[in-house]
Parts: sequence; structure tokens; C-alpha cells
Amino acid sequence: MTMNAPIPVVVNGAAGKMGREVIKAIANADDLMLVGAVDRNPEYRGEDIGEIAGCGALEVPVLDDLQSILVLATQEKVQGVMVDFTHPDGVYDNVRSSIAYGVRPVVGTTGLTPEQIKDLADFAEKASTGCLIIPNFSIGMVLLQQAALQASQYFEHVEIIELHHNQKADAPSGTAIKTAELLSEIGKAYNPQKVKEKETIQGARGGIVGENINIHSIRLPGLIAHQEVIFGAPGEIYTLRHDTSDRSCYMPGVLLSIRKVTQLKTLVYGLEKIL
Amino acid sequence: MTMNAPIPVVVNGAAGKMGREVIKAIANADDLMLVGAVDRNPEYRGEDIGEIAGCGALEVPVLDDLQSILVLATQEKVQGVMVDFTHPDGVYDNVRSSIAYGVRPVVGTTGLTPEQIKDLADFAEKASTGCLIIPNFSIGMVLLQQAALQASQYFEHVEIIELHHNQKADAPSGTAIKTAELLSEIGKAYNPQKVKEKETIQGARGGIVGENINIHSIRLPGLIAHQEVIFGAPGEIYTLRHDTSDRSCYMPGVLLSIRKVTQLKTLVYGLEKIL
Amino acid sequence: MTMNAPIPVVVNGAAGKMGREVIKAIANADDLMLVGAVDRNPEYRGEDIGEIAGCGALEVPVLDDLQSILVLATQEKVQGVMVDFTHPDGVYDNVRSSIAYGVRPVVGTTGLTPEQIKDLADFAEKASTGCLIIPNFSIGMVLLQQAALQASQYFEHVEIIELHHNQKADAPSGTAIKTAELLSEIGKAYNPQKVKEKETIQGARGGIVGENINIHSIRLPGLIAHQEVIFGAPGEIYTLRHDTSDRSCYMPGVLLSIRKVTQLKTLVYGLEKIL
Amino acid sequence: MTMNAPIPVVVNGAAGKMGREVIKAIANADDLMLVGAVDRNPEYRGEDIGEIAGCGALEVPVLDDLQSILVLATQEKVQGVMVDFTHPDGVYDNVRSSIAYGVRPVVGTTGLTPEQIKDLADFAEKASTGCLIIPNFSIGMVLLQQAALQASQYFEHVEIIELHHNQKADAPSGTAIKTAELLSEIGKAYNPQKVKEKETIQGARGGIVGENINIHSIRLPGLIAHQEVIFGAPGEIYTLRHDTSDRSCYMPGVLLSIRKVTQLKTLVYGLEKIL
Repeated sequence: MTMNAPIPVVVNGAAGKMGREVIKAIANADDLMLVGAVDRNPEYRGEDIGEIAGCGALEVPVLDDLQSILVLATQEKVQGVMVDFTHPDGVYDNVRSSIAYGVRPVVGTTGLTPEQIKDLADFAEKASTGCLIIPNFSIGMVLLQQAALQASQYFEHVEIIELHHNQKADAPSGTAIKTAELLSEIGKAYNPQKVKEKETIQGARGGIVGENINIHSIRLPGLIAHQEVIFGAPGEIYTLRHDTSDRSCYMPGVLLSIRKVTQLKTLVYGLEKIL
Repeated sequence: MTMNAPIPVVVNGAAGKMGREVIKAIANADDLMLVGAVDRNPEYRGEDIGEIAGCGALEVPVLDDLQSILVLATQEKVQGVMVDFTHPDGVYDNVRSSIAYGVRPVVGTTGLTPEQIKDLADFAEKASTGCLIIPNFSIGMVLLQQAALQASQYFEHVEIIELHHNQKADAPSGTAIKTAELLSEIGKAYNPQKVKEKETIQGARGGIVGENINIHSIRLPGLIAHQEVIFGAPGEIYTLRHDTSDRSCYMPGVLLSIRKVTQLKTLVYGLEKIL
Repeated sequence: MTMNAPIPVVVNGAAGKMGREVIKAIANADDLMLVGAVDRNPEYRGEDIGEIAGCGALEVPVLDDLQSILVLATQEKVQGVMVDFTHPDGVYDNVRSSIAYGVRPVVGTTGLTPEQIKDLADFAEKASTGCLIIPNFSIGMVLLQQAALQASQYFEHVEIIELHHNQKADAPSGTAIKTAELLSEIGKAYNPQKVKEKETIQGARGGIVGENINIHSIRLPGLIAHQEVIFGAPGEIYTLRHDTSDRSCYMPGVLLSIRKVTQLKTLVYGLEKIL
Repeated sequence: MTMNAPIPVVVNGAAGKMGREVIKAIANADDLMLVGAVDRNPEYRGEDIGEIAGCGALEVPVLDDLQSILVLATQEKVQGVMVDFTHPDGVYDNVRSSIAYGVRPVVGTTGLTPEQIKDLADFAEKASTGCLIIPNFSIGMVLLQQAALQASQYFEHVEIIELHHNQKADAPSGTAIKTAELLSEIGKAYNPQKVKEKETIQGARGGIVGENINIHSIRLPGLIAHQEVIFGAPGEIYTLRHDTSDRSCYMPGVLLSIRKVTQLKTLVYGLEKIL
């Protein structure tokens, strides 16, 4: 697809659920080259990561020492990228090491504190090394949130319905709350009442988040992960809906991040910044 | 459409919003003949009801005395029908008079008490006169409720979303509550929890009606009247949805009721009984 | 709502369906002042346009001479606006006269040829007078199209479903075709086939517009006007839907246009340009 | 769940995709007991079918000889059931053998000819042995089809949208065609035209199946398997929708069939007959 040398990529947490998807996505991308796979689960030590991910042998064994793999990545012609889907307790050190070796981090692992992110941003800036921290790799969801933000300037009324399988314990979903908060940042209160509302059954009108945005959470077996933002005005309804059916939906966001991080010289937070 | 003599029909409350729709529907039905229009609003007294309803002159003036019109209806070859869309305070007397004259009532007016209905049922039975009391003339909604009832035997999980314009003050809608109550009558508790649910924002999981059925009420300008019943099971979702956009949707139910009441000899309650 | 002098507005075609909605919308806007109503239907000559529009007397009679009303509009402190919802055969002259009087046109009437638009643009530029020609005043639909355009950069697969009442003869709808054309302008072909498709029933896969975008047209009584743009990628679906239930949905676009045209000095085509 | 002796069940084709789901479902049902697993794939010979299905050891090895397993099933106190998800070329013999041994077949394998089914029905009747042949085990889809059939008596207009992943080559889907055929059997022609329709883009109005029912097929990555039946009448829309996300959705139908077949004495075709 490209005449340039491929970007060398290290995957940390390669044998986890997201890690395996990332391995498959990299194996199918002509402009990327997998140079290392790290996982601290001893069960997979030394095995071919391609076999584990289910995409056929890639001749890259699973190892447990990130640093030695980062060294490998620095020996390629072009600067490398480290993708991290590991655990909250180790992610800060992983990212710091990666920047130290000049390998650009793309971080999907959650749990970094604001202070840690600030610290990593300073470190990345000094090193002139790009770094991406991405809480949600779904391009579709970011597009939905941006389209909702655009619509919020012209609609006074909006509600959110999010629907998930009934193994999800908390309601509303974090993504729905995030969407409502984004819409609230523009500084107006939504859903001014035309008539005095009366809930004859408590909870019927949902939960209120941000500037008076109603969120409704459905939980049923058979659902996967869905979000609907419904704007209303006299005579019209404008609906944005995102349906997720499996982890493969995050891969375009991961690949985009790998390609973009090589062009950055600072830490950037959020997929919306690079779309 | 039929070689038989048409059924003579009297419309009580003919100049109201529903009354006008009924007038238009009767004017377009070959097997029905409008013989009288009654309305207590003095503004329309003596005017042609067809002009008021917007379907062209029908040569039937609006009068204010139901009884004299009932007399008219009894002078046709076949037994007549009185359609009542009036007010709660007069409906009992209207129905009683109509039965007394042998004119079969089709009643869309709300407000009859259980005692009044019992009393009218006794009176209809003695007179061997059909009488229909129909709280909701929407055939589509009755079909939805019956299909939901059928599905409830095979699904353990169900939630209801109802969506209305923001001029509707109460939530949930009466129809959504009715649907949940119907599903609850079969005697099982829905939505057993797989994990312990936690509402981080109160109300997010909706209101609970009947045997643990979650109802979610959306209120936005641009909506009209919509109901969605969502059944879930591992690997599948089964959704029933009804959207109403204007009063004309009730006319097939009104016409069906007029035709069916002539075949009845007792009082019957609810459109589902004659489908 | 504002301390400034209100914008004087003339409505041409004031007694038509759209004209009446515009009258009501202006009557409810504090920063606009209706100064004239023109309609060539002799039936309404001299009557109060507020009574005709159903929003109460506005003390503005319906007249049939646009030019004399334009003169009126020029006598206010601030420059006026003429809203035109008339007929294809007169619209060019209306707009030209309006610009000549320094009254800014907002044009919803269809039928101007590309040559006429070019000519009016030249005339508006020389006169340094704003002019808006708006084929679709629905802000919601423009937002949908813009959000779809944004998404088209990240999705390779998209189909459109448009649903209308069964009194609409042509399929697909002009707006759906417009949406597909917009998505096609970015210069990529959508929907590369993964397997060789086979239609066992001709037409099942819809009609193809632009760069291989499938459009499906549903026609049913009970529908009003709806459009759905569905993007798909592995593991996710992103859907944009717009539902129109009555003409009031165009009023925010009309009001926005009236306010914006006073800030323009040239002719601008399309609501998307001023959002 | 029951004090009775559990029903002994043999699964033929146990290591296939559907077979594994059936093994898991039986393992979780208190009133069923897995007594044998047959698969002709030599790869799994002798392995514990529970391990293969991913539900833990069940101490039932995969064997390749159906007849010896059928003998086993006849040695239990209650009559056994054989579930067959194998191949078209062997299914007739499997079912015949099973009936011969007095083990009731539940058949999900496709490919039996009408003559073979007739022959098996005769054989089952002589043996007074229940037998179920079920082309679609989805209870949700059967409920949808039955609800659609009920609605078809009251609506004159209906269209079907079916949506599948873009690896599905044929359009429309067999299930959508089946739904349209079912609705057509009641002997009326749907969708009488109100205005003369004109397709400006060929195919926009979909394909026509049965008595003038329009079917529209959407194919996108990210979709799984979905069907929507949309009824329309003046002022209302009634929609039935079924979404399938994985094979587990067929298990309630399989379990129901196993339980019901023990109460039958003849061959029965179709899940709708036992709901």
C-alpha cells in the first residue's frame, strides 16, 4: 500500500482480548510491521502470537520483558510505536519507558491519573516524542459525539438512550455520561419544560446528567452496546445511533492512532483530536 | 361495497376533534349512512356537519338533542348505531338512552366508572342490545399488545420505551402502563438480575411497573406518540413498535366497532375482544 | 430578546402553506417585525394575515403588490428582509426587485435556473446586498448531511433508507439522492463487495446512486418523511436519522436565514453555508 | 427443575458450531441428560465433548457411530431424543435409524426433500414416535411471523427490510422471503397504489415477493442478521423487528423441541406448530 518502510510496532498485552485483535489488525496492514509481542501471562510465554490471535504464525514469540523489545523496535529504519493494552498498575511505567527509548506510545489502557498524564505530557514534550492516550478507540462513537455537539447548537431538546447487555452492572454507561457532559460544555440548559412534568412512576423520565439531559438505560440479554442521541424540535426529530457488535470495531481507531502518533511531537489525549 | 341496506349511524360529539374524523370516515364508507350529528357546542348548531368536518356538505345539520336523533335512527330498516365521543359527565346517560331506543352504542368517551359499566352491561343484556366500550380504538396498538402477550410466554426479559411530544405532562403514558400490566397478568416476574445493578444516576433504569417491567419515557418536541416493547434473550432481541401520527389511525377501529356492535347482544369492553 | 430595533420583514406568498407558517414564526420572534404580507390569491385580499395564519390579528393586511410593500420595508430604521415562498414563474422578478429596493431576499421558492441564480448573484454583489437561496430549510437535514459527510471519511460502506407516505410518486426522494451525491463528491467508491452479490429477486438491493450507494425507498400510509443513512464497518454500525412530522420544522431555518441575510453582502446558496 | 427422570439426549454433529451450542444448552438444563455425542470429524474422536464445547468436562466422549449411541439412549428409564445438526447427505438415514430405535429425532439439518419428509412421516406414524423437523429454531422469528400474520388481517400495506452482514451473497434473505410468502397466503394483494409510482433509479422500491410485498435488503459489515416488517395505515405505523446476534438465540427453540418431541406420536414440521 506504501513504498515507505513499514512502521515497526510492539504490542504490550498482546495475548489479552484487545491485544489479540490488535495483532490481527497489524498483520493485515501492509504499512505496519509487528516486531514484538509482550504479555505477562506466563501461559503464553514463547508461543507465536499469531497462533494465539488466530491469524496464523507470525514468527513473533510472546515475551515478558518490554524493555528488551523496545530496544528491538529502535533498530528499525523508522521510529517505532508501542501499543499498550495492559493493566492500570503498570501502564505509567510502560509509557515512560517507551518514550525514553523513542518508541511512540498508543495507550488504550485505562487508569492513568490526571497527574500521571500531566507528567507523561511533560516528558513527551521534552523528548519531542508523540504519545496518544485514547480512552475510546471507536471512531464511530467519536463521530457520533462530534455530530451531536454540532447539532446541540441548533436544538434545545435532547435525550439519550443507551442499551447494553444485562451483564453490565452500572447505569448509565460511562460513554453516555461522557456524551451528555460534552453536550453540556457549550453552556446551555437543555429541555426547558413546556408543561409541568409529573412522574407517576418514579424514574420513568430517566436520570439527569449535565445540563438537564435525560439518560435512559436499557439492560437486556441479546443487546451488546448501543447508544442513541435523540434531538427534538417542533416538527422534527434528529437521531444519532451507534451500535457495537464486537471488538473489531476499535481496530480502525487503533491503526489510525499508530499512523498518526509518528507525526506527533507531544502527548495528545482523545481520538477526537486526531480525526 | 355491500348490497345490504347501510347501517344508520348517529355521531354524538360530532364537532369535536374525534367526532369530525368519525364523520369523514363514515362519509367514505359505503355500508354506513350518517343519519344524525349531535354536539352541545352552540357555535355549530344547525350547520352542515360535513362542512365542519371538512369533507363537503352531507346534508346533516348539527343538532343538540340526542334523543330526537335516536328516534330518527330507529326509523331505518336496519338497527342503528350511536358513536359517542363526548364528555365523562354525560356519557352514562347517552349510552342508557341509546340502548333504550335500540340504537347500539359505540363509546370512545372515557370516564365511565366500573359500577356504571356494570349497570350498562346489565341493561344491554336485558335489552339484548349490543354495546361496545372502547378505551383505545387503535387496532395497531391492540395488535402490539397481543403480540407482546404472546411473546411474554417465551421471553424472561422485557422493557418498554414510550416516546411522546413534550406537551404531555404525565409519565409513563397510560398505554405503556396498560401494556406492562397486561404482560404482568400471566403471573411471572420479568428481568431477573444477572449481576447486581447499580444506578449511578438515579432514574437511569426507568420506572418499574407490574412484575418488574422497566418503562422509559422520552419527551421531546417533534415526537407524536410512540411505544416500543423490547424483548431480549441470549443472542436475540424482538421489538414491537407502534407509531401514531394522527387521529385518522383510530378510524379503522371505529368502523370495525360500528360493524361489529350490530352483531352483538351484550356489552363488550375493549377492542381486543372483537379483533 | 434584543434591545436593537427589530428587523422589518415582508412575506411574499403569505397565504400559502409555508407562508402561513412563516407568518406565525415571525409573530413569535421578538427581534423581527412583520411589515407586509403579499399574496396573489384574490381570496385573501385585504384580510388580516394573522387571522389567516391562525395566530390572531397582526394588523397587517394581505396585499397583491410586492413593490409598494418593499417601499414600506425601506422606511424602517434597519434594512428589511423579504421572504419568498411563491411560484417558479415569478420568483426571479421578485428577488430582483427586492435587491433593487435594498430589501434582502430569503428565497424558499424553487425553480430558479442556474443562469438566473448567476445573474442574481452578480446583481446582489454590485448592490452589496445579501441574498439567500435555500432549497431546504431543514436545519436537521443539513446537520445530518454534514455529519454523514464527516463520517464518509472513515467508513467504506454506506446505504440510505428513505421512508415516505404513499402519496409520494417518485422514488428515491430528491433529498436522499442529494445526500448520496454529497457523499460521492469526496471521490471514493463505497461498498466494495466482499462476496459476489446475487439478487434472487430483482430490486432487493435497492437503487444505486453516485459512487455505488444503495438507496431503498419505503412508501406506506402512516409514514411522513424520514431518511436514514447507515454506515457499517466491522463490528459497528453508525446511523443518522431525520424524521419530519410537519412544516414547523422548517421555521428555525427560515428565522436563521432572516437574521443571517442582514449580515451578508452577496448571494449565498444553501442553508449549510450559514450554519 | 423437575422431579422426573431427565430426558436422555444424543447430539449428532456435536462438534460443529450448532452442535457445541446444543451441548452447552443441554449441560445447563436440569431436566435433560447428555448420553452421547456423535461427530464424523476424526479430529475430535474420543475427546470429551464438554471440553470441545467450552463448558467443562462432561465425561461424554465424541464417537463416530450413531447406532451404538442410539442403543445407549434406549437403556434409560425414559425415552430418549436425538438432536441432529449434521449434513444433508446423511440426515435421512440418521432420522430413520433414530425412529427405528425409538429415539425421537429433533432435526435442524436442512436438505431433506419433500418426499423424504413424507416417507419419514409415514415411518414415524407407524412407529407412534414423535419427530420434529425444524428449519428455523428461532422462537423470536416465529413469534414475529405469527404477529405479522395476525396484523395482516387489518393492514393493507406492508414492506419488509432485512439487514445482514456483507458476507451474505444472496438477497433477499430466505427468512424474509418466507415471511412475505406467509403474509401472502391469506389471499389478499398488499400495497394498492394511491398514486402511480415512478422509480427514477431502478431498484429503489425494492424487490417484490408474494402478493406485492416490497422487500429491501441492506448489506453492511457490522450488521449481523435483522428483519423488520413494517405495516402502515393512515396515521399509524406498526413495526415488528427481530435482531440476531449469535447462535445462542436458537437454544430456547432447541430445548423446547427436545421437551415437546417426547409428547408427540407423529412427525411435525416447523417450530410454529409447537409454540
